[in-house]
Amino acid sequence: MELVEQMLGSDQLALARLITLVEREASETPQIIKSIYPHTGKSYVVGVTGPPGGGKSTLIDRLTAVLRRKGLTVGIVAVDPTSPFSGGAMLGDRIRMQQHYLDSGVFIRSMATRGSQGGLPRTVRGVIKLLDAAGKDIILVETVGVGQTELDIMEAVDTIVVVLVPEAGDTIQTLKAGLMEIGDVFVVNKADRGGAENLVAELEAMLHQNLKQTWWEVPALTAQAANDIGIEELYERIESHHQALQQMGKLDLKRCEQRKKELTNMIGTKITSKFSELINEGGEFTRYLEIVERGELDPYSVWEEIIYDRVLLRTWMRRLEEEIR
Amino acid sequence: MELVEQMLGSDQLALARLITLVEREASETPQIIKSIYPHTGKSYVVGVTGPPGGGKSTLIDRLTAVLRRKGLTVGIVAVDPTSPFSGGAMLGDRIRMQQHYLDSGVFIRSMATRGSQGGLPRTVRGVIKLLDAAGKDIILVETVGVGQTELDIMEAVDTIVVVLVPEAGDTIQTLKAGLMEIGDVFVVNKADRGGAENLVAELEAMLHQNLKQTWWEVPALTAQAANDIGIEELYERIESHHQALQQMGKLDLKRCEQRKKELTNMIGTKITSKFSELINEGGEFTRYLEIVERGELDPYSVWEEIIYDRVLLRTWMRRLEEEIR
Repeated sequence: MELVEQMLGSDQLALARLITLVEREASETPQIIKSIYPHTGKSYVVGVTGPPGGGKSTLIDRLTAVLRRKGLTVGIVAVDPTSPFSGGAMLGDRIRMQQHYLDSGVFIRSMATRGSQGGLPRTVRGVIKLLDAAGKDIILVETVGVGQTELDIMEAVDTIVVVLVPEAGDTIQTLKAGLMEIGDVFVVNKADRGGAENLVAELEAMLHQNLKQTWWEVPALTAQAANDIGIEELYERIESHHQALQQMGKLDLKRCEQRKKELTNMIGTKITSKFSELINEGGEFTRYLEIVERGELDPYSVWEEIIYDRVLLRTWMRRLEEEIR
Repeated sequence: MELVEQMLGSDQLALARLITLVEREASETPQIIKSIYPHTGKSYVVGVTGPPGGGKSTLIDRLTAVLRRKGLTVGIVAVDPTSPFSGGAMLGDRIRMQQHYLDSGVFIRSMATRGSQGGLPRTVRGVIKLLDAAGKDIILVETVGVGQTELDIMEAVDTIVVVLVPEAGDTIQTLKAGLMEIGDVFVVNKADRGGAENLVAELEAMLHQNLKQTWWEVPALTAQAANDIGIEELYERIESHHQALQQMGKLDLKRCEQRKKELTNMIGTKITSKFSELINEGGEFTRYLEIVERGELDPYSVWEEIIYDRVLLRTWMRRLEEEIR
């Protein structure tokens, strides 16, 4: 593809257009991914997540400045799965990150939710691959960490930074379970507010309890992104985690697992979407739908009847096989 | 089932135990749902959603007090899909709702996320059915409205109340798309803070633009749940929406659609989970997995090879048919 060639030749506009295609799941997507695939695997991918209001965008902005000073190029993917306006929602962030907009070493992209369930993690993975192929040294992926979609997105990154604010200490029980388990580095941002040290102590106690491995001790740092405090240390910890992953051979392992998951997820999605098309066609299935619509039988009982309806099951499977081809 | 008989005889302990079984997706779940099904469909189900920090729990607490004064029994399902501690997370809410804990006309249940993707909306639907069969007049379902899971849960309710705070006005663009579309009643809570009237005006402008039907004009109210202000009016608007739905014949239609979706979702889940078991078994599929693991080919190219592998496809479909039975 010409657009891919242009992107590989550092054309930022081509990169932007390819991202738009992948984000929209355009028909060219498989072709795009195939042609960039041999050029991927070189970027280091860092996820930044946490509850809303933690100052993640500012933190990413300052971290980007640190990375640029080290001479590294940066790709930023800001994911807001709840936003209606793929562009508009991130306007505030864009303005805050304006200093980097004039820097050709930084590429920023905001992504909003696409309707289809499970679609967002897939398109984010595609965008990460594009930034990777485009030669960005570091890719920062920002999500608002609440829910399965965000956890799925974080499966595609190498190091996960969880950003909290001191007030989280009041509700330490409500700390997102997924977040506690997936975090490789914790940052208590806005640490000039009271309670930061307490939260760090609580986090350390919890992290110590949940110790999942001996090769990496999950750190809990403080930062004041708005005042540019603690960012250099955050960078160092991310880099240490990168080193630790590499030394233990875990980075290769992680990426192997990511590729496997990508394939099985893709197959699962294809089968599921084909099957839901079949179901919606109705056919033999219509009479079961009607029983449930009228409230005559509960869904479980109808399912049991379907299980014994060999004709319907066989028809579904035959059709599925045909449709997949 | 004895437990079901006890629950139908108003045994609150039996209800609690049944909810636990359904929440855990215990093997008894189909049997439970089947036996309560004929007793469901009488409750009116109200969803309360919105971003975190909107004071939804306090609002529900005060709304419950209003409902109790009208002589209605209430079931409350508080869903926190991000919480690690099915009990603990809601401790604060439980304490706040303590006044209702001694009231046998109110049944409160907190639910946290279950690991499986897509599992939470299903179990919440089951819990709603249990509260319905147990004879609660009104069921209030609280979610933190960010993401697909919460939107899926809200598909199971009759009236959706979206709770915002005045500060949301600053970031009206970031207002959750799903929320704007699904809300039947909007409440700007904590209206003693500045900006409430502005937000109401903005909401009304947006709602007017998005006018989806003529039979119900979505209202935007203000409230101060903590000071017990605006709750009676909220109740009246919920009741008006209920009446409007009923008069237009839309309540029956809505519930028909809900039952259909329930069946198709259930079938989709069964097929998908069986299929992912098949994939994980490996077999013929193993060599494709290995190609991807080694990074030799991208997932799209592997998928194309699979499509032409008639043996693998046929084996999958045959096994799927067998496994479903």
